[in-house]
Amino acid sequence: MGDENMSGKPIYIGLLGLGTVGRGVFRLLQANKSLIERKVGGPVDIKKILVRDLAKNRGLQVEPGLLTNDPEAVLNDPEIDIIVELIGGTGLAADYVLKALSRGKSVVTANKDMMAEYGKKLFAEAEAHNCGLFFEASVAGGIPIIKVLKQSLAGNRILQIMGIVNGTTNYMLTRMSKEGIDFATALRAAQEQGYAEADPTNDIEGYDAARKIAILASIAFNTRVSFQDVYVEGISNIAAEDITYARELGYTIKLLGIAKDTSQGIEVRVHPALLPVTHPLAAVNDAFNAVFVQGDAVGETMFYGRGAGEMPTASAVMADIMDAARNFRHHVPGMIGCTCYETRSIKSMAQVVNKNYLRLKVVDKPGVLAQIAQVFGDNNVSLATVIQKETVNKKAELVLVTHDVVEQSLRSALASLELLPVVEKICNVIRVEGEGNS
Amino acid sequence: MGDENMSGKPIYIGLLGLGTVGRGVFRLLQANKSLIERKVGGPVDIKKILVRDLAKNRGLQVEPGLLTNDPEAVLNDPEIDIIVELIGGTGLAADYVLKALSRGKSVVTANKDMMAEYGKKLFAEAEAHNCGLFFEASVAGGIPIIKVLKQSLAGNRILQIMGIVNGTTNYMLTRMSKEGIDFATALRAAQEQGYAEADPTNDIEGYDAARKIAILASIAFNTRVSFQDVYVEGISNIAAEDITYARELGYTIKLLGIAKDTSQGIEVRVHPALLPVTHPLAAVNDAFNAVFVQGDAVGETMFYGRGAGEMPTASAVMADIMDAARNFRHHVPGMIGCTCYETRSIKSMAQVVNKNYLRLKVVDKPGVLAQIAQVFGDNNVSLATVIQKETVNKKAELVLVTHDVVEQSLRSALASLELLPVVEKICNVIRVEGEGNS
Repeated sequence: MGDENMSGKPIYIGLLGLGTVGRGVFRLLQANKSLIERKVGGPVDIKKILVRDLAKNRGLQVEPGLLTNDPEAVLNDPEIDIIVELIGGTGLAADYVLKALSRGKSVVTANKDMMAEYGKKLFAEAEAHNCGLFFEASVAGGIPIIKVLKQSLAGNRILQIMGIVNGTTNYMLTRMSKEGIDFATALRAAQEQGYAEADPTNDIEGYDAARKIAILASIAFNTRVSFQDVYVEGISNIAAEDITYARELGYTIKLLGIAKDTSQGIEVRVHPALLPVTHPLAAVNDAFNAVFVQGDAVGETMFYGRGAGEMPTASAVMADIMDAARNFRHHVPGMIGCTCYETRSIKSMAQVVNKNYLRLKVVDKPGVLAQIAQVFGDNNVSLATVIQKETVNKKAELVLVTHDVVEQSLRSALASLELLPVVEKICNVIRVEGEGNS
Repeated sequence: MGDENMSGKPIYIGLLGLGTVGRGVFRLLQANKSLIERKVGGPVDIKKILVRDLAKNRGLQVEPGLLTNDPEAVLNDPEIDIIVELIGGTGLAADYVLKALSRGKSVVTANKDMMAEYGKKLFAEAEAHNCGLFFEASVAGGIPIIKVLKQSLAGNRILQIMGIVNGTTNYMLTRMSKEGIDFATALRAAQEQGYAEADPTNDIEGYDAARKIAILASIAFNTRVSFQDVYVEGISNIAAEDITYARELGYTIKLLGIAKDTSQGIEVRVHPALLPVTHPLAAVNDAFNAVFVQGDAVGETMFYGRGAGEMPTASAVMADIMDAARNFRHHVPGMIGCTCYETRSIKSMAQVVNKNYLRLKVVDKPGVLAQIAQVFGDNNVSLATVIQKETVNKKAELVLVTHDVVEQSLRSALASLELLPVVEKICNVIRVEGEGNS
């Protein structure tokens, strides 16, 4: 239909970067070229590839003439229609992308850091030059969550998103849950598997997930949400006991990126959470990602797949290349642009309402529970479950689950608990998610 | 970007039918009109609605002037850009859709029966007139699986699809699994819940799932697969014992629509199957649907949500309306057409390879197992597991699981078993899926 015939001018791609994802894109185009060209309606070829080191062995059969270390040779080639930015980082990548857009080229990127930092500027440039700017691969790798939110669920008001969007931490929590190992051992395992970097801060402290949920929230709620808007807690405080107790209570622990549309503004946060074992996200294990989306019309949906890796990420990049190419051939390169047409306020974390799991170390003597219960009562925190676990040396471990409570009230209760002589230590406080509209 | 401004001519919609889904679409456009128009880039309005009975109370506030019982008043209105076909059935619906396309209108439909029967003709007409033909709502309700396959995973060679695409049977199997009730009781429960119709044949015999997997296979493998190509078995033969034994072996039983790309052609089939409890589809319960897709680049993905119902289906229809409207405004109404550009052969069911679960009633005396094992051995069927269950009145129940076996060999073995005097009854044979590349 409407497609021009296969003999038209090829769509030429300029690749910036030939690392893991770049290699995946190169290989995928080689492997599935005829299928890709049939669906786009014409030839698609890589014309130039920007690399730092022309001589490096990449384990790929690349025609030497394709490689260049001069950015302008790619960005300024008038035959190139689509620039695929895979160098990573922010400053230089954004420079290249802005240049490409200013010259009327559409851009495909897998760079969440750049989109989170420069998204507004990049979209403005794309709009000014009627170009496409595609970034499916920037969140949740092979899972097509960006297009799902921008198009497939576009008629819905999105009520909430909960995502397992960091594979490293999900791998660690899965190992901890299945094998009872502690955090440090799980981290070593993740590093041995190549999931975690030598400095794992970005993953385990939740910063990576925060950038992703900021992007998803921006699309879902049609308003710009930035990294700075996201409340972030990582998983380094999760102990083997927490996972055991959670399981006894019917929960599993996951690091979630959460975005909710509430009457008091938008909630955007990343933190570990207890999820009921029956929740669709509870079965998402190992390095897999999944995004749970609730819309006012569609109800509950979930999108599951690999969040990283050479070929899953290349799959997302290729889908964007094909959309960009198809739009280009139909002379509508900038058909779907930025959807942040509203300005919504971010709800303060103190106002967020949740059930909470608490683990306390207390003195084991009569009347202690009454004192603790009193503190919660005085702060408007009502308790759903109280379980006394093992007692060693006159010290007991107490596990409590609250009913829904405003975070501010919980914080007051915790501050008072800290002052209570019978409370030895507040070992952990973890929010509970996925039990309906709390 | 490229969008014309909001003051342009409205996109006018003609609705054919105002039943459950039609009402949902009407309500959704009312509820989310400003959001929808912002994303489409201009006004979107329903101009005419074809109904049979103008006077019927539909529990909706519809301007009386919108309703008509004259199809031509909708199909021949030159201001209408998009026809939304929601009357169901095949012949009349196809007539209307052909007329609409011949007049240059894009069409959105939720009608899987019509697409399965007339898809080729409808796509040819759409192509001839450069119109869009959208059918997201025809498979798996609110789950955007059509667009995922057509666009988001377009750079992949799809290796296999396994879908829970019939909510009624999934609801029944979930009740049977959780409560140990039998098939007849589960069917009554489904009828009481409004999931199953008075004549439930279409659901429980797998015909509904077969139409859906035919559509999904056509898109995944770029070749036309029709209902007649699909091997179909329903769930009426599944007993409570099968579910119990399956669980003991680490499996759950689901009705699956399966499509695989193999070197001997395409497999397309619907039948109950034992799935490992750790498989992502195993956790899909109640009336929910999910489609598991494996691509050569993206690996394993899964898409989960409600497969039916007023608002989930309306969500899918609205996404198509918005795509159609956006394409219309950009003068590229027929941008993505039919993708069946190949002609692939369907593999004979006799050639399909699977592990199989068998439940036999046999005489309980020494040497029986040896005789049975001999029959399997003679037919090249190797056994992975043999468990003797309860013995009553000298009769034993035997549960066997084979290794991977060509269906033809299994059938020969079963034919020989039927002749064996010690075999009282072959109670059930159920394929095993989801354990890797069998």
